[in-house]
Parts: sequence; structure tokens; C-alpha cells
Amino acid sequence: MRTERKSREHSAWNESERLKAVQAPVIPVVGDWLRQTPGAISLGQGVVNYGPPPEAREAVNKFFSDPENHKYKPVQGIPELREALAKKLSAENGIPLGGREVVVTAGANMGFYNALLVVTDPEDEIILPVPFYFNYEMAAAMANCRVVTVPTDESHQLDVDAIEKAITARTKMVVTISPNNPTGAVYPEEALREVNELCAERGVYHLHDEAYEYFTYSDAKHFSPASRPGSEAHTIALFSFSKSYGLASWRVGYMVLPRHLFEAVRKIQDTILISPPVVSQHAALGALKAGPGYCRERAAKLAGVRHRVLSELRSVEAICRLSETEGAFYFFLRPETRLSSATLAERLVREHGVALIPGSAFGVEAPCGLRLSYGALDSGTVVEGVGRLVEGLRAIIRKS
Amino acid sequence: MRTERKSREHSAWNESERLKAVQAPVIPVVGDWLRQTPGAISLGQGVVNYGPPPEAREAVNKFFSDPENHKYKPVQGIPELREALAKKLSAENGIPLGGREVVVTAGANMGFYNALLVVTDPEDEIILPVPFYFNYEMAAAMANCRVVTVPTDESHQLDVDAIEKAITARTKMVVTISPNNPTGAVYPEEALREVNELCAERGVYHLHDEAYEYFTYSDAKHFSPASRPGSEAHTIALFSFSKSYGLASWRVGYMVLPRHLFEAVRKIQDTILISPPVVSQHAALGALKAGPGYCRERAAKLAGVRHRVLSELRSVEAICRLSETEGAFYFFLRPETRLSSATLAERLVREHGVALIPGSAFGVEAPCGLRLSYGALDSGTVVEGVGRLVEGLRAIIRKS
Repeated sequence: MRTERKSREHSAWNESERLKAVQAPVIPVVGDWLRQTPGAISLGQGVVNYGPPPEAREAVNKFFSDPENHKYKPVQGIPELREALAKKLSAENGIPLGGREVVVTAGANMGFYNALLVVTDPEDEIILPVPFYFNYEMAAAMANCRVVTVPTDESHQLDVDAIEKAITARTKMVVTISPNNPTGAVYPEEALREVNELCAERGVYHLHDEAYEYFTYSDAKHFSPASRPGSEAHTIALFSFSKSYGLASWRVGYMVLPRHLFEAVRKIQDTILISPPVVSQHAALGALKAGPGYCRERAAKLAGVRHRVLSELRSVEAICRLSETEGAFYFFLRPETRLSSATLAERLVREHGVALIPGSAFGVEAPCGLRLSYGALDSGTVVEGVGRLVEGLRAIIRKS
Repeated sequence: MRTERKSREHSAWNESERLKAVQAPVIPVVGDWLRQTPGAISLGQGVVNYGPPPEAREAVNKFFSDPENHKYKPVQGIPELREALAKKLSAENGIPLGGREVVVTAGANMGFYNALLVVTDPEDEIILPVPFYFNYEMAAAMANCRVVTVPTDESHQLDVDAIEKAITARTKMVVTISPNNPTGAVYPEEALREVNELCAERGVYHLHDEAYEYFTYSDAKHFSPASRPGSEAHTIALFSFSKSYGLASWRVGYMVLPRHLFEAVRKIQDTILISPPVVSQHAALGALKAGPGYCRERAAKLAGVRHRVLSELRSVEAICRLSETEGAFYFFLRPETRLSSATLAERLVREHGVALIPGSAFGVEAPCGLRLSYGALDSGTVVEGVGRLVEGLRAIIRKS
């Protein structure tokens, strides 16, 4: 009897099936390659090269002046921040809060996970355009949902017909991200309106991720589908302080959601998190005092970096296609090679000292793809990195 | 066609079945009663009446001196904190880290959710002794698991036979909390060893929550079952800075887990959170410099408050039973009434100006139960609150 039990125990002490179904996070893998290659330049992780405005630190100092601030605060976020966000959403995004609620989250990822748990049950489907943001696909697997992928066009723009055809009786949510991670595509107002109307007609939720709202270049304009009249009952919008205000490590973002989902989302945050970190909420409140000018000024500098990156990349356009997207701080490259994106990415780090994220992480198995991020470094280092990339692509693709 | 779609949309825009199955968080409900009753005293929420040591603030000041600190950091926590925690676990808890990993979490609740996702699939079972901590039951519903409850004895001590009988082929985890929330019971070393050995024999994980490790009184001694040789492959231990170091709103805790679950837990945190808030990790690192003396001194003061609360409550022992448990800062009262715990709790706030948490939130439907927390207020206010409670119980129970 005892031996029987012993043998069972070894099969039982395993991770769950749902976790086995989740892809390994790519950022730490690329991080390992980087650590093993001293002097390598990372065009990998999506993060900006600046920190928060001084107002954030002042707010943290003020936080310490009231000992009550160390105690638990409301699940949905502190009232002062929720009020400031309501004003911001109305003034900057044209999103009216009638019929909606703002919930402060520990970053936009948690906002997505909240949305997923609150609108889906196991086996339900969500629609993700490809390339997708890897954490959203991972979240779906953890929540036992099915991801239905739909293609985007050559310029990484939405194919609304493909989305419509992908909707089934089990579809609960269509997910869009604009400016897009990982492609940098900015979806025009018209396309986002169409998706939002389609979702209304078909009775599915429309989740729109606007974490990169301030990062648009040339003529591209950011649009919030939640500003559309008639969107309040089925639109969930996600925002973040990580990129815009340089508060990545502080884990603070927010979501706007239909009021009928508010109590359920409070249950989720209460259970998983209790509340977003209150010190980070104070920092965010301080950052909002600096205002959107802080973000736009920095985005304008990134426009210059983007310009230099594009000039470099045009020199290899024969072996590496590229859509010159106008948002976030990403380009999604399509090198002309039969190498897998993981192999190519690893060789670029080890042989040429430059790191990008392999396209496989974003659901692009073939042809080969790479995400290039130009947000994290000073402009000189980015250009040096892109120089290595150009050299590397020439060397590897010629040989392959 | 259009009208058909319209009618479907209204049924589709609903929260998920899994969220409908989750109980409403009780703390905000009691918070509403409190706000509507000016001058009421809260013996409700589990939180301490002190903030972090000055070392935490110094660490936050230092955090600001390196702009890199605003960028993303490792999913599992910053290396300095993980190293300091490994030392603490070895020195204070006798937990060796061979075969294990430490993961910093955004509070112990998130540690529990990580554990749940990583060891269970939908329809799997976890065993919770009753009264249970409400957020753990809520987490199970969100993760589509089944909660199997087992009774505890009159002193709120574990019934290991009941746990053994409750184990089925679908059982993945037995959960224990000591010192206990909501009862204050401290489980003796022998009982925790028995549960841990039972889990080893039966091939299930043993999750032990030690968030209240420093809060023991009289002869009660804290014991960490993860210190047991042979526990490393199936024991998950949860810890928190919220109570011990007065960092509740900062959302920082940690978990010790078998190494074979480490990569899977990294996937979860990467997806839901990216990393615990880095500023909070620095605060925690600072707090550790103050050391456990900081926590023990404050627990010693709470011992005095506990003593005064007990003297008051003994005056109503005929109408309100109570086990004089020796840990955390809770007592679980059993008033002799047929009123539901929610009704009794609401009347105590509205008619007598004192708030406790109804037992129904902890899985105790009948007989009536109430959790009393004596950690959050200065000793005078606690005694005043308990005075109101005694009066209220006399008035309500006599009339009912």
C-alpha cells in the first residue's frame, strides 16, 4: 500500500496542465542570452529610457507624512487618483464615465487578467490579431480560455472581416492594441469604430489596450474606441503609467469598464492583490500633475530615434522587410530567412551583440519575425545597436 | 436579423459564471456600514496599528538615487531581497533552500493565487479547514477549483483525520494557516508535521500560510512545516510584510516553493503582474534591516491588548462562547443567537457602533460567528470597542 502511494506521489507533484500550456516568458530567455554576452545592446524589452517626473517623487514624500497610508486602501484604487483619472479620460480620450467605472490596477497586464476572468469561462474564446502581445495569450491559457487568432494585413492593420468571421457562439471578447505591441501599428479611428460596432452588434466585449497612447509619429493619431457613443456597455479600455510616465517598475495602470462588471472586478482584485500598491498610486497621482506634456515631449524625442532607426533599416530592405509603422516604439521585422525566429534572435545576440525579441513569442511562427524596440536606450546606443543588427542580418542571411 | 442580434447581446454582456460563483468581498461591505455610522469603532479589518520601521523609508530614498530602478526588474523579485529572504528563512524559520526557490509576490494573497494556478486544473480540489480565510475560497472559485471544507475542533485546532478522509483522487493541495486567520489559533508543531507527512504520503501539496508568524502569545510557538526534512518537494510556504513590518498598502510578500514549480510561477507573475512593485521590494529590504525585533516588540504590545480584550469578553461568556486562541490578532466569537452572522454584524455597527466581520464570510453559516480583530487600533480604542460589543451582544441576544 505504502509503495503504491509513493509511486502516485511523483506523478501528482507536477505543475498543472493549464500552466504546461503556457509559453515560457520570452523576456527572461532573451535576458539570459544578454547576460551571457557582455557588451551586447538590447533592442528587446519594451520600456522607455526615462523615469517619472519630479512630481512623482514629491507625491511619495507626501505619502510618508500620513501613517494611515501604510494601511489597506480601497480595492478599486484611492479616490483622489480615480477622480484625477476620470478627468484625464474625459479631457484627453473623450471617454465619458456615464455607465462606466475606473479601476486602478497593478499595471495594464493585471487589467487584462481582470477583464479575462470577468468576461470568460473555461473554453470560451477571445480573438487576438496576430502578431499578438505574448502576455495576453499566456493569460488566456492560464484562464483556460481559447485564443482564436486572426491575421493582420501587410502593414499590420486590422482585418475587420477576418475578425467578424472568427466570432462564434463562444466568443466573449475581441482584443485590440493601438498603438500596437509588437508592431507599432496605429489603428485609424475608422477601423476601431468598426470593430467596436461589430462587437456591439454581436454581443461580445471589445477590449482595447491604449498603454502606448502618447507614442504616435508623423500623421498617426491616437483614438479611444471607448469615446464612441454606445460603447459603454461592452468596451473595456486599458491604460498604463509604465511607458507614458516612466513608472514601469511601480506597477500602476488603470482600466475603464462597463459598470455591470465593476463589482466582479473588485472581487478579483480583492482576492489576487487586495489593492494596487498605494505608494505607486500616489506616484501616479504626482505624475498626472506633470501632465501629458511630459509624455508628449519624450515621445517627440523618440520620433527622432525612430527616424534614424528607419534610415539604417532601409539599407537592408532587400533582405528584411519592414512596415514603417507610426506608433509605440516598435518595428516588426520580417527577415528573409528560413531560420526560426528564436535561432535568428539567439545568433544576433551571441554573434553580433544585439538583442531583439523573436516573432514566435508573438504567435508568428513563419515567416521569420523579430520585434525591435527603440524606446529603452539613448539614441546613440539605439543607432549603434541597429548598426549591429544590419551587419548581423547581412552576415547571417547571406550564409543561410 | 438585426433584432435577433440585439436581443442576444443583452444576455452576452454579463459577468462570467466563475465570477458569479465568488462571494462578495466582505471587507468593503462592512466598510460601507462603517461609513454610514459616524463614530463607529472597527474591530473588523486585519491590519496592524503601526507602520514600517524608518529603514523602509531610507531604502525608498535610496531607490530614487538610481534611475534604472524605474525600469522592469526580475519577475521573481530583485536579487538583493531574495538573498536577504533566504537568510531570514534559514535563520528564523529553519527552512533550508535546497530544492526550493523564493519568489517575491505582491502580497501573500498573490502568493496563494500563484500556488493555486500552478498546482490545480479546473475541477481539482483543495482542502480548507473551516473557518477559512475568505480570499482563499474566492480564489478557488476564480480558478474553477472545488473547495472541500473540513471541520476544526472547539479550539479551532486541526482535525488531521478529517483532512485525511477528505483527500480524493482530485485533491491537489491542503491549506493551513497558522497563526490562523480568522480564529487566532496557533497550530502546534506536531499537528503541522502530521499534515505535512500526510500530504507527502498522499502525493498532494501542503500550502502553509505564515503571514502572522511573529504574532504568538503565552506559550504558543510558531512552527514552519517547510523546515521538516522531506518537505521540499511538496510544501509551499507564504509570508507577508503587510502585518509583520506594517507594510500592508505596499503589497509585498513572498513564497517558498518546490523548485519544480519555479518556472511555472514565473510565467504566472510575468503575465499577471510582470514583477512585484520594485519600490515596495526596496522598502521590504529596508524593513528587514530593522529585523524581527521590530515585529516582536510590537507583537508584545498586542499581547497586552489581547489580555484586556479577553477580560472584557469573559463577562459575556454565557451568551458568547470564545476559544482563547494565542496567535495573530483575532478571536472567533460564537454568540448564542439564531440571527445570521451578517444580521448580527450589521446591527452591532448600526445600533452599537462597533464593527466585526460576520462568520459567513469564513464559511461558518451556523451557528453564528464573528471575527474580532484587535490589531488595528490603539489599545484604548480597542477596549472601548469591545465594551460596545459586550453591551451590544447583551442587548441584541436578550431581545432575540
